[in-house]
Amino acid sequence: MRVLGVDPGLTRCGVGVVEGVPGRPCTLVAYHVMRTDPDDELPRRLLLLDRALTDLVAEHRPESVAVERVFSQHNVRTVMGTAQASGIAVLAGARAGLPVQTYTPSEVKAAITGSGQADKAQMTAMVTRLLRLAEPPKPADAADALALAICHIWRGGTRSKLAAAADRVRRGGAR
Amino acid sequence: MRVLGVDPGLTRCGVGVVEGVPGRPCTLVAYHVMRTDPDDELPRRLLLLDRALTDLVAEHRPESVAVERVFSQHNVRTVMGTAQASGIAVLAGARAGLPVQTYTPSEVKAAITGSGQADKAQMTAMVTRLLRLAEPPKPADAADALALAICHIWRGGTRSKLAAAADRVRRGGAR
Repeated sequence: MRVLGVDPGLTRCGVGVVEGVPGRPCTLVAYHVMRTDPDDELPRRLLLLDRALTDLVAEHRPESVAVERVFSQHNVRTVMGTAQASGIAVLAGARAGLPVQTYTPSEVKAAITGSGQADKAQMTAMVTRLLRLAEPPKPADAADALALAICHIWRGGTRSKLAAAADRVRRGGAR
Repeated sequence: MRVLGVDPGLTRCGVGVVEGVPGRPCTLVAYHVMRTDPDDELPRRLLLLDRALTDLVAEHRPESVAVERVFSQHNVRTVMGTAQASGIAVLAGARAGLPVQTYTPSEVKAAITGSGQADKAQMTAMVTRLLRLAEPPKPADAADALALAICHIWRGGTRSKLAAAADRVRRGGAR
């Protein structure tokens, strides 16, 4: 299974492509960090992001896409841009006809390190080890996108039934 | 000048198309409220929204698009979906090669009613009057999208230099 993971952001958007099957070591296919200029206007930034993601999906032909879920508890200054970028990422996968799954940061951390509270250094170290890379991905933003892809593969391409159920309850309560 | 205004939302997304020139009464072209099912998965909801907006832009051939700016102070339960929907709306305009402008709710209220604190009933009444409609737009969600389009026309298709400058300062401070 080949998965394209996206750590969404407007200024920096990490993309990681990984191949593997549940319970086995994964293989790195590619990673990128796309940037858009904070001085540019929003429409142009979203358009560049959309094009770059659409191109990467076409180039790497993943079977599914995993995108980090954005919460309003995130940094308030950047959360709107991050949410918009995540919408563009989810749409890019959906427009290509691919299944798109979102994961919370703590789901990804737990899947990769065994702890939902792992810090950035721990995550980068584990991603480097799991993909048997000679050195950590650079820029470091790519590590989160690779972690998302690994998490999605290990989950067998679906979120756990427990997480999905918890989500339904949460959404039900929020309506 | 023909403008397509979007009041973004994931469950309900208002779209209003208005024609006019600054300082003259505007004419209603069309309005729609698109809905997506809250029980549907996010990728499908964003895809439906993208398709509907892309179709409306192709059908009505506006010269520019105006989208309400989303703030993190909005309803926390729905703000992420609203931000993602706004990203999709901005992208739909940009992908069609159109200039896209965002306005804060108070900019729109001030342009339409003279007060940035106008309530929903005042806004609907003014939009009905300004477009010389026999009755208020139904559903009411469409009124905000029509107000955005009118605001954009009256601003001459650009945000005021003052607002743009204030925005640059704000963004500069947030970096």
